[in-house]
Amino acid sequence: MVNETQHTCSASSSSKSDGGSSSGSESSKDSSRCSTPVLDADRHERLREKMRRRQDSGDKWFSLEFFPPRTANAAVNLISRFDRMGAGGPLFIDVTWHPAGDPGSDKETSSMIIANTAVNYCGLETILHMTCCHQTKDDITGHLQKAKRLGLKNIMALRGDPVGEEWEEEVDGFNYAVDLVKHIRSEFDDYFDICVAGYPKGHPEADSYEADLRHLKEKVLAGADFIITQLFFRSETFLQFMKDCQAIGITCPIIPGIFPIQGYHSLRQLVKLSKLEVPQEIKDVIEPIKDNDAAIRNYGVELAVSMCRELLDSGMVHGLHFYTLNREVATTEVLKRLGIWNEDPRRPLPWAVSAHPKRRVEDVRPIFWASRPKSYIYRTQEWDDFPNGRWGNSSSPAFGELKDYYLFYLKSKSPREELLKMWGEELTGEESVFEVFTCYITGEPNKNGHKVTCMPWNDDPLATETNLLKEQLEKVNRRGILTINSQPNINGKPSTDPIVGWGPSGGYVFQKAYLEFFTSSEIVTALLKVLKKYELRVNYHIVNVKGQNITNAPDLQPNAVTWGIFPGREIIQPTVVDPVSFLSWKDEAFALWIEQWAKLYEEESPSRMIIQYIHDNYYLVNLVDNDFPLENCLWQVVDDTFELLN
Amino acid sequence: MVNETQHTCSASSSSKSDGGSSSGSESSKDSSRCSTPVLDADRHERLREKMRRRQDSGDKWFSLEFFPPRTANAAVNLISRFDRMGAGGPLFIDVTWHPAGDPGSDKETSSMIIANTAVNYCGLETILHMTCCHQTKDDITGHLQKAKRLGLKNIMALRGDPVGEEWEEEVDGFNYAVDLVKHIRSEFDDYFDICVAGYPKGHPEADSYEADLRHLKEKVLAGADFIITQLFFRSETFLQFMKDCQAIGITCPIIPGIFPIQGYHSLRQLVKLSKLEVPQEIKDVIEPIKDNDAAIRNYGVELAVSMCRELLDSGMVHGLHFYTLNREVATTEVLKRLGIWNEDPRRPLPWAVSAHPKRRVEDVRPIFWASRPKSYIYRTQEWDDFPNGRWGNSSSPAFGELKDYYLFYLKSKSPREELLKMWGEELTGEESVFEVFTCYITGEPNKNGHKVTCMPWNDDPLATETNLLKEQLEKVNRRGILTINSQPNINGKPSTDPIVGWGPSGGYVFQKAYLEFFTSSEIVTALLKVLKKYELRVNYHIVNVKGQNITNAPDLQPNAVTWGIFPGREIIQPTVVDPVSFLSWKDEAFALWIEQWAKLYEEESPSRMIIQYIHDNYYLVNLVDNDFPLENCLWQVVDDTFELLN
Repeated sequence: MVNETQHTCSASSSSKSDGGSSSGSESSKDSSRCSTPVLDADRHERLREKMRRRQDSGDKWFSLEFFPPRTANAAVNLISRFDRMGAGGPLFIDVTWHPAGDPGSDKETSSMIIANTAVNYCGLETILHMTCCHQTKDDITGHLQKAKRLGLKNIMALRGDPVGEEWEEEVDGFNYAVDLVKHIRSEFDDYFDICVAGYPKGHPEADSYEADLRHLKEKVLAGADFIITQLFFRSETFLQFMKDCQAIGITCPIIPGIFPIQGYHSLRQLVKLSKLEVPQEIKDVIEPIKDNDAAIRNYGVELAVSMCRELLDSGMVHGLHFYTLNREVATTEVLKRLGIWNEDPRRPLPWAVSAHPKRRVEDVRPIFWASRPKSYIYRTQEWDDFPNGRWGNSSSPAFGELKDYYLFYLKSKSPREELLKMWGEELTGEESVFEVFTCYITGEPNKNGHKVTCMPWNDDPLATETNLLKEQLEKVNRRGILTINSQPNINGKPSTDPIVGWGPSGGYVFQKAYLEFFTSSEIVTALLKVLKKYELRVNYHIVNVKGQNITNAPDLQPNAVTWGIFPGREIIQPTVVDPVSFLSWKDEAFALWIEQWAKLYEEESPSRMIIQYIHDNYYLVNLVDNDFPLENCLWQVVDDTFELLN
Repeated sequence: MVNETQHTCSASSSSKSDGGSSSGSESSKDSSRCSTPVLDADRHERLREKMRRRQDSGDKWFSLEFFPPRTANAAVNLISRFDRMGAGGPLFIDVTWHPAGDPGSDKETSSMIIANTAVNYCGLETILHMTCCHQTKDDITGHLQKAKRLGLKNIMALRGDPVGEEWEEEVDGFNYAVDLVKHIRSEFDDYFDICVAGYPKGHPEADSYEADLRHLKEKVLAGADFIITQLFFRSETFLQFMKDCQAIGITCPIIPGIFPIQGYHSLRQLVKLSKLEVPQEIKDVIEPIKDNDAAIRNYGVELAVSMCRELLDSGMVHGLHFYTLNREVATTEVLKRLGIWNEDPRRPLPWAVSAHPKRRVEDVRPIFWASRPKSYIYRTQEWDDFPNGRWGNSSSPAFGELKDYYLFYLKSKSPREELLKMWGEELTGEESVFEVFTCYITGEPNKNGHKVTCMPWNDDPLATETNLLKEQLEKVNRRGILTINSQPNINGKPSTDPIVGWGPSGGYVFQKAYLEFFTSSEIVTALLKVLKKYELRVNYHIVNVKGQNITNAPDLQPNAVTWGIFPGREIIQPTVVDPVSFLSWKDEAFALWIEQWAKLYEEESPSRMIIQYIHDNYYLVNLVDNDFPLENCLWQVVDDTFELLN
């Protein structure tokens, strides 16, 4: 809401939004036979239920508010911030509605698309703000239908700011947030969880504090599920407000909005827009240090921590809502000092789950997209059903084509210049490509002194788990086995293992050793001879860019390569090597050579031709060692291959 | 066919059959997402495809012909014989059509019901014979619809025998087997595999051998998939016949019908009915020993073995069809001496699969019915879908009630007198019941010198696997923990392990330790106290006959207790402890006390009252130790319980 007031100046309504795209896929049909409740109860609950459960368990929580960015580059950064701040375990995030920014459109900076990305690609429970003034019912319905289609389940219903200085009611229009709440309930029944705004000091335009409380109660009676408040500077303000709400019969959760002061300028702007008065004791501290950003932020953190402590200690507050201003440091600091930043190393599944409701039963994925989960989600977004328990047979729905490698949520975090430094300003041959792969594995700087922290197939540094294989990976990459995915075999480690563990405690996790790499046809020829010796033990798929495919997979069945056994549950097998989806992955994996690497160089330059040559002539290979209780034989397979070549 | 001729005397047609019960459930819809091809390719193939695959692989096979029994008791014995002879690995069995025995009815001795039992309860690929003369099209269609509904997929299409001595064509009726073949194809398209009869010496009523060959070709052209021949006494007869068939363009498989001579009387009767002539050299041997059954059988076995060897050695024969006359010894002996009796100790799944086509994806079952698989099949026969991969959540279809404990395929193989000897002519208290359980476990005779080889919950002696737990089981049964099901924990044994292995080779099997027993409320009270200490490790369900239910299962989810990891496959988890189906099992498990045990005694007799008391007051308990890699803690749980009681 802070942010909502920040953007009031521009008056154009968002009537250009593509709200007309109507209904869409509302597949709520669960496969009745196979859908076992997934390991993580969170994925099944509505936000209001999660809130209730956390309140019942006495487990304090927090949430984070963001506003949509102004540029595509800022959007890339915001998504990375969602991923980083999401790691601290917010109960939800919310994305403000920016009427001037075409908020319901498909632009990468629109409120709608940012919220969509948070839900689907970052797996965050998300509330989308929506304002209603100066908009037609059809516009609003269109926005809501689109939000539903994208998997958004929660709306913060707001009035929005007037066009001119003075507020004028529109006949037959939406004049108050309560009109929007009623509209949502009448058009979408109980589908959305609805949040409304509360004003601890009363809304500045309200006739009185009491009148404003009555408006709030009307919003709740119209169907709001919980309340988030405007910011305030003293805990007493909120606690009194909460008592007053309870006194007039408001019983739903009321969540205090916390604004850690992060700078002199932002505080001044905020005060102007929100018409709130900054207490004198705060002004007294800030004025003398107004040019020292660090000092103000430190003070703001102190202030926020002590106010939050008072709120939590009151016993009336179970969750805290943070106005982040899209910044990371101050809020994270406050949360860590409060002890509610909960970076749980345990993952419900080995991969990051999506929060789209139709994906709530999903618990199996092919291993290929392990480092590109957002691309996997993109390519499966049109599916109506997601696999639960089994990957299933080859008649699964097809993967969408990945044509646009520059979708902002798939884009590399590093700019072109940085990529060139890592991957080479000028390549001199296949060996210089081997060198890049090797440096990525070892973490050592390349010959120009730059560390290789990402690759076209992996936008992050090497996973801790892959580190277990570092030594062998280095050795094979140097010789032209260009690895892009791998996992060690695991024969029953506790599910709480900090590196390979996942799922609830008390379980055991298992893996078959996996190795995936690009390599030359010469090496493939030798490899195939060697694999004959391992026929019963190793499954392989070998494919080139044209789709020539060599495999020994029985009946094109998927091979489970990660699974877990938990107390009182059915088996979970979250990753498989599936022969059919491997061919879809192949297209993407080969295209990344060109889209992310070759295109860094001038057309017809030697560097570009080297990458193009690899793209055209190398094979993509994956190997699974089925004998998980024994020592991983895949390194022996590779050694035997090199020996045969010598 | 031997048998068909055996029953010619009676002329009444089977028009009283309940063929009118029409269409029924033809659920061929597979869950597209979860249906992974099961481990055993056999379950997916049609009989003609299996035949072709075996021919291609050069793997010789056999099949067995039976006729429907005359009495209910004989039916019980025949079903046991199906189970025993099924263990040798026949490609299929067939059941003759007995027009005098109301063959399409629901009587337990009808051809239809015997074939149904073979398919559904014994898991045998089965061909049902069907004759057509003197029957209306509607009758025939009714029989075929019923056969399809019951899961039968193969029909042997025969003319049947004339009413009088002379054959008279009926206008508009079925006059020849070819009419029946055409009818099946026109009414049921390609649903059934169709077999027809071939006569190596020509049909006795045919104008000539050549004319009979032309009739045979007509049957094949009309849609028959393969041919089984009438018996013959010399391999040359068959081989010549096969050449003659090929010469006129019959290319489908032709399977020789083998009749091991088993006695003087049956041979004479057969000769009379089939109008075949016994070669002089056979007569010369048999006549002198006609009163010595054993000698004749030995001779018959010799003769059959050497003829079968000639057939197989010719390279023209891939499978042998045996006229068993419902007897076991001679045929089994021939098969063993030929080396094609293949008692494969490896099971595709830990439980015996059913051959109904709608069950071909089934690969998960609750553990409770482990010793009563036929009852499980009975209680789930109305389901349209069967679980594949996952058991799924509690919204599974309900189990049918088991009201009739005396269905012939569920009935104990032992007569009442024998059961009384095993379980006690007179019980003197709960301890004498403990004693029966203990003797069943130890295999020692009871105090009257009788071994206890079955129990109401288990019609067979202790499984080899359970033997691993024998010592502990004996100890606890003596003290009133009356065990009815258990399995040890297994932490990754090879799938080829002779005792606990199942599934294809190269895999690993796992189990969680399981223990299920009846016990008194006093012991349950102590047990519950002890279980508090094991809360995170042991899942339990404790229920009495009234349904009072105590459990710590999370969210009523199923707990996988047997699973296997195989090369190139998804995980298979064939048994689960499912909280919901446990309540259905509970009804059956408690009822067996009364139906199978209490009812052996006079009403109001002390013995009956003792069993009734246990039924009314004991609890049925199951325990799972989730920590399968550690030593099974369930014995410690029981020890702790007894210690607490002392």
